[in-house]
Amino acid sequence: MEIIKIDTSKVSGAVTPDEINALGGEALEANDLLHSRRGAGSDFLGWVNLPEEITAEKIAETERVAGRLRKLADVVVVIGIGGSYLGAKAVLEAMSDSFACLKREQGRPVVVFAGQNIGEDYLYELVEALRDRSFALISISKSGTTTEPAIAFRILKAELEKRYGKEQAARRIAAVTDSSRGALKKLSDDQGYDTFVIPDDVGGRYSVLTPVGLLPMAAAGLDISEFVRGAQDMARATAQGVPFEKNPAAVYAAVRNALYRKGYKIEILASYDPKLVYVAEWWKQLYGESEGKEGKGIFPASVTLTADLHSMGQYIQEGERTLFETVIGIGRPKHEVRIEEDPDDLDGLNFLAGKRISEVNSMAEIGVAIAHVDGGVPNIRIEVPELNEYYIGALLYFFEKACGISGYMLGVNPFDQPGVEAYKKNMFALLDKPGYEKESEEIKKRL
Amino acid sequence: MEIIKIDTSKVSGAVTPDEINALGGEALEANDLLHSRRGAGSDFLGWVNLPEEITAEKIAETERVAGRLRKLADVVVVIGIGGSYLGAKAVLEAMSDSFACLKREQGRPVVVFAGQNIGEDYLYELVEALRDRSFALISISKSGTTTEPAIAFRILKAELEKRYGKEQAARRIAAVTDSSRGALKKLSDDQGYDTFVIPDDVGGRYSVLTPVGLLPMAAAGLDISEFVRGAQDMARATAQGVPFEKNPAAVYAAVRNALYRKGYKIEILASYDPKLVYVAEWWKQLYGESEGKEGKGIFPASVTLTADLHSMGQYIQEGERTLFETVIGIGRPKHEVRIEEDPDDLDGLNFLAGKRISEVNSMAEIGVAIAHVDGGVPNIRIEVPELNEYYIGALLYFFEKACGISGYMLGVNPFDQPGVEAYKKNMFALLDKPGYEKESEEIKKRL
Repeated sequence: MEIIKIDTSKVSGAVTPDEINALGGEALEANDLLHSRRGAGSDFLGWVNLPEEITAEKIAETERVAGRLRKLADVVVVIGIGGSYLGAKAVLEAMSDSFACLKREQGRPVVVFAGQNIGEDYLYELVEALRDRSFALISISKSGTTTEPAIAFRILKAELEKRYGKEQAARRIAAVTDSSRGALKKLSDDQGYDTFVIPDDVGGRYSVLTPVGLLPMAAAGLDISEFVRGAQDMARATAQGVPFEKNPAAVYAAVRNALYRKGYKIEILASYDPKLVYVAEWWKQLYGESEGKEGKGIFPASVTLTADLHSMGQYIQEGERTLFETVIGIGRPKHEVRIEEDPDDLDGLNFLAGKRISEVNSMAEIGVAIAHVDGGVPNIRIEVPELNEYYIGALLYFFEKACGISGYMLGVNPFDQPGVEAYKKNMFALLDKPGYEKESEEIKKRL
Repeated sequence: MEIIKIDTSKVSGAVTPDEINALGGEALEANDLLHSRRGAGSDFLGWVNLPEEITAEKIAETERVAGRLRKLADVVVVIGIGGSYLGAKAVLEAMSDSFACLKREQGRPVVVFAGQNIGEDYLYELVEALRDRSFALISISKSGTTTEPAIAFRILKAELEKRYGKEQAARRIAAVTDSSRGALKKLSDDQGYDTFVIPDDVGGRYSVLTPVGLLPMAAAGLDISEFVRGAQDMARATAQGVPFEKNPAAVYAAVRNALYRKGYKIEILASYDPKLVYVAEWWKQLYGESEGKEGKGIFPASVTLTADLHSMGQYIQEGERTLFETVIGIGRPKHEVRIEEDPDDLDGLNFLAGKRISEVNSMAEIGVAIAHVDGGVPNIRIEVPELNEYYIGALLYFFEKACGISGYMLGVNPFDQPGVEAYKKNMFALLDKPGYEKESEEIKKRL
């Protein structure tokens, strides 16, 4: 049974089924390289087998610590940036109530994020909002010295210790970090924080199935066993040896490379559910950081529909013809709302009376796909039956696997990020960080 | 005095100052066309003079109705899509407390948005959340029949009338619509809603200075006089007759067209303050919908930094070299947070002790700009002194004026959106809307 369906029938104006199938061998070879660890960046392939390596004991330990934080705190602040932020954020948003904030009784605890920016107002407002709230921290950082999360953690940890004393504060902090080295690991050992390991062979953007993703999810009360089970099933569906046309990750990787080779340079990830905004942000990191190098790579962008049909819709329909779109379609919503008959019918909606809103949304989706294809925008569709932990786990692993395959097909190392260092070096030089004296001197001449 | 500064010194690796100045005449001619109403789409140039046409009486009337809604309701739901959504949303987010949701006493009323999607769960969750809240509606639609807001309004109006009775419900509804025609206008007249006019000569994406933007802002308690004053000052700074180098809108339009003509096809709007995410969404609609036509136009994308340096940063630094970035820099934050000394200094941040977080953010911004320029990404910087109503009003009018100029320089009509109709026709055909019988038959053959 297919967990997630991929429909590539609407790319045929740009690449034919034969052209896609011709890339099948290349895609399966790339998949083999991931499993045999013989390709570029093979030190960072730990994510491939993560789903099956997550034992019941690991899940129980994650839930135990999450349970303590949940019991102690109204608010859990998750501190992390990049891959130590977007995975958990994507899953939490996908599973959240869009209007939880309006409810008098919000679920406990509320999970919020910090350390993903250097916003002075952001941190001020967070500390103020926490004044009459009981809170706890999950600090996620391999090194413990990445500037953004380190600043947020220093400030929030001081706040926590001021309020509860050092010992009680330590019970309200969990760390996700390196197994043996680094500032956060040392601090955790000194203070006795509960600590989870980021494996050495898993890069940030592929870390959602490590405690980096799982601990915040569990703190928010999500069913992480189901999330892992979805990823496990998708790992089987995309394993070595699965034929090309049965492997949705290989198909997606092949189609997007076929399109890129024909000059389609921008991929727009579209969804018709506003809860998927951060799944798109996570996807942008995954693909942008994996493929955007050596002057190459599809530029990843995203839209939320139908909202953005009244925004980016015009460009997509008639702008430069170098883009394609990948739609995440959700099979069925969680709740039911029907459009009722209105005796006056001034708005002319009575032709929809009795229909569910999701039926209108589905017809919008089909109508848009046809319009965009007619306008020269190839359309790939990924169907997820519903938004729950199981299918989100499957979806995220699907995208990871497809990204590894796709990066190899593009001819880059999809597991490094050499370009991320350039700005850090400049920033440290400008901030007179010890050890950057020579760089400081040089950069200040350029101001 | 400059209200908003534009710095184009960091594009010189791609286009020289001489090349920019050579486009000065073209930019000023385009600006003249906007003022003389002799260019394409001249029926939709009402926005040009909006700032000076907003009288004290209009502001007072807007504040009177907003005041009543504020008094009656805990929650005001603003119903609109596209330009009837993004302007108010952008300003409200820019002025909001990022963690208002965590506060036990939230400001009154909370303003939320609906009708910008066809999410069944979204509407279900909204209606549920409103059950123990007193609420009011602002319905924004020229016609009153646009599918998304019409569905949301039908459902929420029924809820309101069920709860308060028709007469009291009418006092909790304000409409922003056509002056004389359409479903929402007729309903408003029938029911006696307070009604505000969307001028015929102002398109949705240029409507933030009409009641479309102003009424929701006033309902949220913002100072709309200051917002208008900022726009007025920017209107003067970009008026007909202002020399090229003194007119920031003309300069921005000239630089981006110079870059586009040299093959820079993607513009990334970047900001270092997470409050500006929806200013970027508003900007994407403005530029995407105005310029993305006839197979032309810069593709507008956005990032929030430093968050996205750990996401899209790799692509920006080393991906395909066809992009440039425009950074909105905020001069000073509202609040002050300093990094404190830590005796252990495990995180190595003591070299920053005593510094404000915004100083680190500024150095990050400069370091990033230099890194990106070194990587071949031209960098435009727009400096806004601080985030308040005055400067946001100035910023949004700046972008509108620049967009009009830029669209004319590109050779398109920046005030139409022919491509937005294609999907609507298909959707109506698929939904068997009366009047679409022929289209229904045709499209169903294609499924």
